[in-house]
Amino acid sequence: MEKQTFDFAQLYEFAVSVFQSIDFKEEDARLAAEVLLAADLRGIDSHGIARLSGYVRLWEVGRLNPRPNIRVVHETPSTATIDGDAGVGLVVAPYAMRIAIEKAKQVGSGWVAVKNSNHFGIAGYHAMMALAHDMIGMAMTNASPIVAPTFSIERLLGTNPIALAVPAGEEPPFVADFATTTAANGKFEILEREGRQAPSGWLQDAEGKPTTDPQTRKQGGALLPLGSDYEHGSHKGYCLGAMVDILTAVLSGANYGPWVPPFVSYLPLPQNPVGEGIGHFMGAMRIDAFRPVEDFKKHMDHWIRRFRSSKAIDGKQVLIPGDPERENEAQRRRTGIPLMPQVIEDLEQLAERFALQSLL
Amino acid sequence: MEKQTFDFAQLYEFAVSVFQSIDFKEEDARLAAEVLLAADLRGIDSHGIARLSGYVRLWEVGRLNPRPNIRVVHETPSTATIDGDAGVGLVVAPYAMRIAIEKAKQVGSGWVAVKNSNHFGIAGYHAMMALAHDMIGMAMTNASPIVAPTFSIERLLGTNPIALAVPAGEEPPFVADFATTTAANGKFEILEREGRQAPSGWLQDAEGKPTTDPQTRKQGGALLPLGSDYEHGSHKGYCLGAMVDILTAVLSGANYGPWVPPFVSYLPLPQNPVGEGIGHFMGAMRIDAFRPVEDFKKHMDHWIRRFRSSKAIDGKQVLIPGDPERENEAQRRRTGIPLMPQVIEDLEQLAERFALQSLL
Repeated sequence: MEKQTFDFAQLYEFAVSVFQSIDFKEEDARLAAEVLLAADLRGIDSHGIARLSGYVRLWEVGRLNPRPNIRVVHETPSTATIDGDAGVGLVVAPYAMRIAIEKAKQVGSGWVAVKNSNHFGIAGYHAMMALAHDMIGMAMTNASPIVAPTFSIERLLGTNPIALAVPAGEEPPFVADFATTTAANGKFEILEREGRQAPSGWLQDAEGKPTTDPQTRKQGGALLPLGSDYEHGSHKGYCLGAMVDILTAVLSGANYGPWVPPFVSYLPLPQNPVGEGIGHFMGAMRIDAFRPVEDFKKHMDHWIRRFRSSKAIDGKQVLIPGDPERENEAQRRRTGIPLMPQVIEDLEQLAERFALQSLL
Repeated sequence: MEKQTFDFAQLYEFAVSVFQSIDFKEEDARLAAEVLLAADLRGIDSHGIARLSGYVRLWEVGRLNPRPNIRVVHETPSTATIDGDAGVGLVVAPYAMRIAIEKAKQVGSGWVAVKNSNHFGIAGYHAMMALAHDMIGMAMTNASPIVAPTFSIERLLGTNPIALAVPAGEEPPFVADFATTTAANGKFEILEREGRQAPSGWLQDAEGKPTTDPQTRKQGGALLPLGSDYEHGSHKGYCLGAMVDILTAVLSGANYGPWVPPFVSYLPLPQNPVGEGIGHFMGAMRIDAFRPVEDFKKHMDHWIRRFRSSKAIDGKQVLIPGDPERENEAQRRRTGIPLMPQVIEDLEQLAERFALQSLL
């Protein structure tokens, strides 16, 4: 079936209404909708409004607190630990990032570990909050365990993304935002939907053997860390996923490794939790805490131009991290956000349930 | 030819003498030798005493200042920028790390960008300086451009390593230290020496086509970012290498991209430098700036044990980052450090030149 395209404003107001229907304060509903829709605008469809009903189901089973008392539980001038009180990451993470930015204003940098949160949408949104303050922003989160460390046949890590946003002058900012696996989970959902096999190097089966069947994920298989196999550096991808797990969860007091609560409400919570909720780690560094902003921006523009104009393989173009997402956003703000029929059906069910106006 | 094994203390004193012979103060010579030999102890032979003559040649051509006036040129309570005054990274980086640690003692975390430095040995040494203070340590550096960004046929990035060291309680620390490429440069040197081909996915030729010939590196070819190709996430490896380049050099005022000065003295310095020397970026975060040290260490031990005991693929074992290097160090402190004949010959030439006692 064909995708159907919707105006950003329509989807945004719809998401706000749904969040308000599950008892969010209006301010929080607006923020959560903005973060969620940022994914759709930037072309990361797996993390956008397609997940709205997933958040509702988490609320339904009592795993998401719509009125959290988010608070700082530990701090120094440049650091803080935050208890998200089981609130949605879409709201908890921006709260944490604002604190990181405030601390950076005071002492040059701010670093915030977050426990007791839920999924926070795209990491890039939070990292980019720093840009308007002439700061470098960083955001990471742990996630449901679906990745096997190198040589393991157990799923012990999430896709554990890392985002770094760096302001430039005349050029658009540098925004890296990537899962620490060979392929993000959303790519498997697309393959499954289209009945296609995965490239080799993305997956292993329950015995740790390479496979190309996306279904394996539901039969004890696992995603592979960036690098795919040991010969191609998968131990480095494992290091990256582990670093994210430690900074987001061991440092904050959240659940880590196989104890990270799943996003999907139909999977049971792991027994004997080792912490609270899932964890994030955010950072902000003031550019002028290192060198004058104008000097930095001049050189950052130069860096970007040099890399973007680099000689490319025939028929290809060298990109700057953030280029494809920014182009998607410009396009989708003009022409709308395309949604899959399944996603539309899902949203229509939410509309019916909460007596909201249909999207169609 | 067979490798020959030398006692750590003998190689250390030899390295100290060589650094003193090129006018280092005794204190700096001892520190530089300690950092250099840490690579040999930990089994990263490409970054150890095999490079000693390379540092001497940089001094010879006036690219390494043996008596640098290393100084802070910009700072806030949690950040600093350091001018290494063309000193050796083996001395400049520990200086920077000490400042990061001091700032972390004061305000919870410390972040130091370094310009005008030279190669700093293994990143892991510097990150690990934080461990004794119950801090998480981080270190990265940019390096000679030999890596092509995804879709590029130009060498614009170094192998740009990242290290993160995390203290545990009863368990040894977690120490990740890895190049952001599929394979570190040292692995190619070994292949060349042994006349072997590289695995696919490590290299491309001057037109950007995949190749397995290590010689290609000297014929316009390039190393590939972690991930190998776009389908397997090389754009993420490119993101990582770019992040390191920006934090170490655009933020500090060092050279970046293709302007990073080569380690080897026989290659000319790039024209029209965009900064000073090469750049590092170091960080230290106090554990108790986030949660009580005892809580953290208990959970870190638990994390390490859970991962290390994870079910493995038949005949394999799941490792914790830092395990192999720590085992190497224990072994080599007992039984000595094996050196290749070429390396021994190189060291013997240094002995002759500076009228030092032969190692043999």
